[in-house]
Amino acid sequence: MQHTYAERVNHMENSAIRELLKVTEQPHVISFAGGLPAPELFPLSEIRESYTQVLGAGDHSVLQYGTTEGYLPLREVISAQMRAKGIQAEPENIFLTNGSQQGLDLIAKLFINPGDVVLLQSPSYLGAIQTFRSYQANFKSIPTNGAGIDDIALELSIKLNRPKIIYLAPTYQNPTGTTFTIEERKAVLRIASKYGVPVLEDDPYGELRYDGSALPAIRSFSTEDEVIYLGTFSKTLAPGLRLGWIVGGKNLIDKLVVAKKGTDLHTSTLLQRATHYYLTHFNATEHIETIRQAYKVRRDLMLNELKENFFDRAIWTEPNGGMFIWLTLPERYDTLDLLPKALAGNVAYVPGAHFFVNGGGCSSMRLNFSNPTPLQIKQGIKLLANILTID
Amino acid sequence: MQHTYAERVNHMENSAIRELLKVTEQPHVISFAGGLPAPELFPLSEIRESYTQVLGAGDHSVLQYGTTEGYLPLREVISAQMRAKGIQAEPENIFLTNGSQQGLDLIAKLFINPGDVVLLQSPSYLGAIQTFRSYQANFKSIPTNGAGIDDIALELSIKLNRPKIIYLAPTYQNPTGTTFTIEERKAVLRIASKYGVPVLEDDPYGELRYDGSALPAIRSFSTEDEVIYLGTFSKTLAPGLRLGWIVGGKNLIDKLVVAKKGTDLHTSTLLQRATHYYLTHFNATEHIETIRQAYKVRRDLMLNELKENFFDRAIWTEPNGGMFIWLTLPERYDTLDLLPKALAGNVAYVPGAHFFVNGGGCSSMRLNFSNPTPLQIKQGIKLLANILTID
Repeated sequence: MQHTYAERVNHMENSAIRELLKVTEQPHVISFAGGLPAPELFPLSEIRESYTQVLGAGDHSVLQYGTTEGYLPLREVISAQMRAKGIQAEPENIFLTNGSQQGLDLIAKLFINPGDVVLLQSPSYLGAIQTFRSYQANFKSIPTNGAGIDDIALELSIKLNRPKIIYLAPTYQNPTGTTFTIEERKAVLRIASKYGVPVLEDDPYGELRYDGSALPAIRSFSTEDEVIYLGTFSKTLAPGLRLGWIVGGKNLIDKLVVAKKGTDLHTSTLLQRATHYYLTHFNATEHIETIRQAYKVRRDLMLNELKENFFDRAIWTEPNGGMFIWLTLPERYDTLDLLPKALAGNVAYVPGAHFFVNGGGCSSMRLNFSNPTPLQIKQGIKLLANILTID
Repeated sequence: MQHTYAERVNHMENSAIRELLKVTEQPHVISFAGGLPAPELFPLSEIRESYTQVLGAGDHSVLQYGTTEGYLPLREVISAQMRAKGIQAEPENIFLTNGSQQGLDLIAKLFINPGDVVLLQSPSYLGAIQTFRSYQANFKSIPTNGAGIDDIALELSIKLNRPKIIYLAPTYQNPTGTTFTIEERKAVLRIASKYGVPVLEDDPYGELRYDGSALPAIRSFSTEDEVIYLGTFSKTLAPGLRLGWIVGGKNLIDKLVVAKKGTDLHTSTLLQRATHYYLTHFNATEHIETIRQAYKVRRDLMLNELKENFFDRAIWTEPNGGMFIWLTLPERYDTLDLLPKALAGNVAYVPGAHFFVNGGGCSSMRLNFSNPTPLQIKQGIKLLANILTID
């Protein structure tokens, strides 16, 4: 029997990238392609202790069905963390998800009719593009002026395209690592509010800061439904847990409850209880500081290796945080065409074109520095420079 | 800012039932309303040991991102379990989900265009109705002849309604507890294949058998894409873990990978690894036998109490397995109207009308016997009988 799928299936990602990335998982390949944290930094023993404790307390409810919005004490801890960052959020404004990818999916499910316009940065996060695309969204991209966002272009695009939602990752963005200034953040909120378009602020990397001072979330300038904020434990604790959260107005949270109930009922009770134990019994701040120091070393090393090996043959971003550097070669290079050659030379990256919805990025690539070891960074960038020279 | 949601939000469940069920969670209410397992039977110490072991082995990959289709060794164990039940399934035919509710959602996402017809039993599982409804499906229901399914009515409905998919729970169904015979199962497959309509076979309760011999899944008569099978650990292990699976053809699994990747990337790595440990180090069959024995006592007790307290004032199903009894009062009763009175009298049920897509079930109710204790069953059925007499 041949299945006849729904129309939206035609808008889902083809698996070319997935097939390619499987190659990068082979042990002899130095991969700058993934977006993975360094596994050796996971707080394995603290998480183990957390699970052991909540499963050892004789409380059977840790394995029972739970509420769809999430375990209240955990939402309380997260709302306190949010307030400490200047984001107004009571526990009833916090909604728990299976990683922030599910936050993206639920927001797309609630907002996007086929044909609705999503306005986003160019380049933008691949996972968000794929999710919105599966709901048959149209995309319009906002020109970025090197680092942040051009407010005049944003306003013009809103006027022209009447988007349903604006998707932004203003802090240490994936794939470029670039960041909005405070003025740009305020401008985004002002313009979006003026036209009544909600902003979806995706902030997986905010805690991974290596230079400068903490930047306020766009949501911190808003107490209303103008900004929906996505957070995650994937980059600060561990992605294999699958736990993220949405900050939103109460009306939105009510809708999210209904949407998630039909999607998967609720996020694992045990996961929520163990994470709550971790956050209230261990020093998460100290752990994040450990990650920061390690990633800063890797970022500095990659920037240095790029300088030594590419000097005047490419340009690249110098991110203050996050996991990625965005490298752009002269226009005659096509990073999609070059990838098989790189893989044959045992080094991998993600071609830039994947992050653009309306073309572009063909001579760029995304390089990850959080997962490879310092030695791999040194070797891999040299390999990459040699391959690109041979071409 | 007022949000403008997508059209599908208008098709999502209103929260009347949810508000009602919150009342049933109050400790003084004896609730037959939920569909919860008995928490005191959860294998707490074995699950604890499983998490402690996989987090204690020094393998950091238990907390890293994982593959979307799921952890291969766990898919191998599940495929062996499926084969032991006569279902042809290699590991590549197994796809892991966050409970079988996510299986329902992903299948609906892949198959249902707005307006597509879903054919289902009448009554049918509320969670499936809600999920399909959120994808703007239309419903046609198949008359059930008391217990199973009428093959003539099924064929007629397929001819008339050209459904996109047929959703069935043939074994100890929620809400009625009724079951298809082997002949009915074979007839469903024959008719569905004849018209090229895939069957979605939902089987959360198959292992909870109290009488008679094991019934083969409809999928066991098919090796192709004609039947998509949904399984779950929620009823045999614990629902708070959130782990289920889909059995399907390779083409379907490929589509599921793309759909789930955009939905939440993958199911928790740690959860999968710990469940694999549990299944390979503890005696799951023995544990299920313990649950069976306890639930059989509760079912027998509820049936007995119904006989003593309702004798000729109602009819009810006598399920051979599962978690539910379906009670039908004389037509003049409306179980939706009666519910506030029942709650005031400290006993709760789910009104039958909720399980019907095109009207009906007004004088019926669903009664759960797995979650209440034997004492609560005795007291609660008496309370219910008194309330219905007073009316």
